[in-house]
Amino acid sequence: MAGTDRSKADAAAHIQPGPAIVLVRPQLGENIGATARAMLNFGLGDLRIVAPRDGWPNGKAFSSASGADVVLDRAQLFDDVPAAIADCQHVYATTARPRYMVKPVVTPREAAGEIRTRMGEGETVAVLFGAERAGLTNDDVILANTVITAPLNPGFASLNLAQAVLLVATEWYQAEQRAPTRTLDPGNSRASTAEEREAFYRHLEAALDDADFFRVAEKKPSMRRAIRNLFERAEPTDQEVRTLHGIVTALSDRRADGRRRFER
Amino acid sequence: MAGTDRSKADAAAHIQPGPAIVLVRPQLGENIGATARAMLNFGLGDLRIVAPRDGWPNGKAFSSASGADVVLDRAQLFDDVPAAIADCQHVYATTARPRYMVKPVVTPREAAGEIRTRMGEGETVAVLFGAERAGLTNDDVILANTVITAPLNPGFASLNLAQAVLLVATEWYQAEQRAPTRTLDPGNSRASTAEEREAFYRHLEAALDDADFFRVAEKKPSMRRAIRNLFERAEPTDQEVRTLHGIVTALSDRRADGRRRFER
Repeated sequence: MAGTDRSKADAAAHIQPGPAIVLVRPQLGENIGATARAMLNFGLGDLRIVAPRDGWPNGKAFSSASGADVVLDRAQLFDDVPAAIADCQHVYATTARPRYMVKPVVTPREAAGEIRTRMGEGETVAVLFGAERAGLTNDDVILANTVITAPLNPGFASLNLAQAVLLVATEWYQAEQRAPTRTLDPGNSRASTAEEREAFYRHLEAALDDADFFRVAEKKPSMRRAIRNLFERAEPTDQEVRTLHGIVTALSDRRADGRRRFER
Repeated sequence: MAGTDRSKADAAAHIQPGPAIVLVRPQLGENIGATARAMLNFGLGDLRIVAPRDGWPNGKAFSSASGADVVLDRAQLFDDVPAAIADCQHVYATTARPRYMVKPVVTPREAAGEIRTRMGEGETVAVLFGAERAGLTNDDVILANTVITAPLNPGFASLNLAQAVLLVATEWYQAEQRAPTRTLDPGNSRASTAEEREAFYRHLEAALDDADFFRVAEKKPSMRRAIRNLFERAEPTDQEVRTLHGIVTALSDRRADGRRRFER
């Protein structure tokens, strides 16, 4: 037991600051455990689990973690993706197939270099991984700024969950910092968090609802996705999110004024 | 069924010429299946299985291959490592821990570039992976020219078999050809095969046995390993192996002559 405690402490000491690994609606405890094992091989320790099918904690996860218990012990449980990434400034979504969204798509190697750079600049980063069979939904992917797709055999692209995490983790471990893909003036602003952007989307959608913008009910989900995708791609700073709030407020007030004027 | 046949044919069409993946004494059929799946994701199709604990074919391998049956269907079974690598000119051994042998040690990324180069020059290449718990024995590693060790968390290096294969396979898939690490004059010689080198070792060892070189029986295994390691590292050409045979023959004949002279 002393040996186990010591090896746990040893493993914990080798966890480095790294991106959060977010498992979205994972099904099998075995895969959560295998993911923790894959992570710890590369010094990653921030595991976030969204709505696991079989609840949490899950004994099967621990029995298949091959000793990476330190990662499972620290894992955080969330009800939905927005809650899991609330504190994150840049979010990556892993997908095996194209999603036909206008979003940058990078390989795990390219993502790894970017993540090193972003984290070196103090940003918080998360990588989303979907459930075993279906992967991430389009609504999950919309919440991400960038898509990661691994180069795989076009005739056979079939990774299990822990293997997908492994491909990202090994690249992250080996990555050097790359030149930033974007420069922020650090004196005036910082990258917005997912929570700040989410608050803006809710504000905007409430205003649009109020304005009867979503007339055709069936089109509402795709319109919402299109709006989110546009703004996520723009990667607004915290200051820009405040500006966007101001715009929505101003426009809805003007419309309200206009209506009053009309009613008058 | 037509769909399955078509997807098998599709997967087979996407297998590229690549290194042989040699599983040495694997225990669980599940891991053999998971290895086939990992391989096919990166277009690898040459799986060689040495003395699997539970025999071959193994139903559990097929049920855990997630459709990578084309790799299992083509897999070759061997009794020992020398037979499995007989046709290979350059052999890599994967190890998680240092083996204290004088051999080049490279990362999967470095190995991948070398393998692309070697195969581009027409060489045959194999990569050895050890059993689930213990990995490769020192006798297995001795048979390799180069060791591959992945960069992993020093506090927690614990990959399963298919994950170890995945790390090599993803690097191979992404690798560009690198400058050769060694230049052969292609007009006069080629890299020797493992079978040719093995025949030389047997010749040399028989001659040494005959000369009572292995006096201390307990030391024989380590002496044999040291000899093999030296020559594997030198990567002799086919011509050089013939020369080595000639040297051993000449020396043993001279010794035989000497003995005759002494007896006379």
